[in-house]
Amino acid sequence: MERRKEGMTLVDAAMDEIIQLILDQDMKEGDRLPNEYDLAQQLGVGRSTLREATRRLVSRNILEVRQGAGTFVSDKHGVPEDPLGLTFMGDDPGLALDLLDIRLMLEPEICAVVARSATVEQLEQLERYCKEVSRLIQDQQDYSEADKQFHRYLAECSGNRVLRNLIPVITSSISVSIATTKDEHRLMTDIYHHQILEAILRRDAAGARYSMIAHLSSNRASVTKNMQFH
Amino acid sequence: MERRKEGMTLVDAAMDEIIQLILDQDMKEGDRLPNEYDLAQQLGVGRSTLREATRRLVSRNILEVRQGAGTFVSDKHGVPEDPLGLTFMGDDPGLALDLLDIRLMLEPEICAVVARSATVEQLEQLERYCKEVSRLIQDQQDYSEADKQFHRYLAECSGNRVLRNLIPVITSSISVSIATTKDEHRLMTDIYHHQILEAILRRDAAGARYSMIAHLSSNRASVTKNMQFH
Repeated sequence: MERRKEGMTLVDAAMDEIIQLILDQDMKEGDRLPNEYDLAQQLGVGRSTLREATRRLVSRNILEVRQGAGTFVSDKHGVPEDPLGLTFMGDDPGLALDLLDIRLMLEPEICAVVARSATVEQLEQLERYCKEVSRLIQDQQDYSEADKQFHRYLAECSGNRVLRNLIPVITSSISVSIATTKDEHRLMTDIYHHQILEAILRRDAAGARYSMIAHLSSNRASVTKNMQFH
Repeated sequence: MERRKEGMTLVDAAMDEIIQLILDQDMKEGDRLPNEYDLAQQLGVGRSTLREATRRLVSRNILEVRQGAGTFVSDKHGVPEDPLGLTFMGDDPGLALDLLDIRLMLEPEICAVVARSATVEQLEQLERYCKEVSRLIQDQQDYSEADKQFHRYLAECSGNRVLRNLIPVITSSISVSIATTKDEHRLMTDIYHHQILEAILRRDAAGARYSMIAHLSSNRASVTKNMQFH
């Protein structure tokens, strides 16, 4: 048992050194790490230690192994699949409301920032995402992925790197809300998305902020109503 | 290689079943899972698959193994050590600002909710945490852990379970801010904490909200100044 504990510590140290290597060399997503032999030499560890460290960094979404091609810096920026432990909260109906309350803190502010600072390319892309949600809603199709893409892109356009890593809060909330409200909110979603988009396009920060509040608040009312009938 | 991939899928399935078991039986933190033999039987998997699944759930902070005592539901609620991949952002000075901007979205709202809904016990505890930060600041001691405790407790008192899992954003920001401003902000911290506490004690939601904005904004000004001189 002592030996195993010692092994764990070696693995932890190797993990830290790999992270430091990525930061020191300013490696970006998709960059390839040195091959196993060279990296083990460089870190002064055995290959089994390196393999375990790599496996654990893969599970933390810091590295990505492509079979036959090598080990790369992951494009998931070290953000775990479920950073907020939502899986673990089950399907408590209160969760939909807790998630919406957090979004009400984050997304109106995001909209204001994006209205002020988005580039022309970002505005065009945002418009495309908004139209895609519209099209799916009009066609009575499943629009949840497109809806997530619209909100995700808004958060990305804010330029705040911590916020980028909070995107799972927003996207999980969309699935939970659609499920909780039995999707009765789809037509309102389309109307509000357009209000938000138009405010951003005319660089109206207050308008964008309040349209997002209206969108989320209307969603919140719908979730609350469905919880009462539960 | 095919075999390994198949093995991974078995492990993934076992992980999902263990999570489902915890949710179905409404197991809480600290509850013990069935022993390895029984659990392997129950899930219909081999012990090596179960061990790997357990290891990965431990690394996701869903389970905790206590040597000789068994496997337990972790008190970390499945929230990873570094849910926002902050380790991976290095020490970019812009990070302090990005973190503060997120806190400015979350914490004023938290204060308003806490002013309205905190129990008498929570108010007393909050007062104790506030006094502890004061004492350390007056005594010229390291107060960062106590400062984190004050802000962490505010977030916990909000009763929002998603927010509880976002606490690392707040606590990481405190370390980064203190480092970035070379701690020139310590006396102001004490003054603002008291303002926040007093507003909450008199159930003044707007006062609590704006005192938190003042606190974070003053911090933000200090971080910005230090970035310019960098």
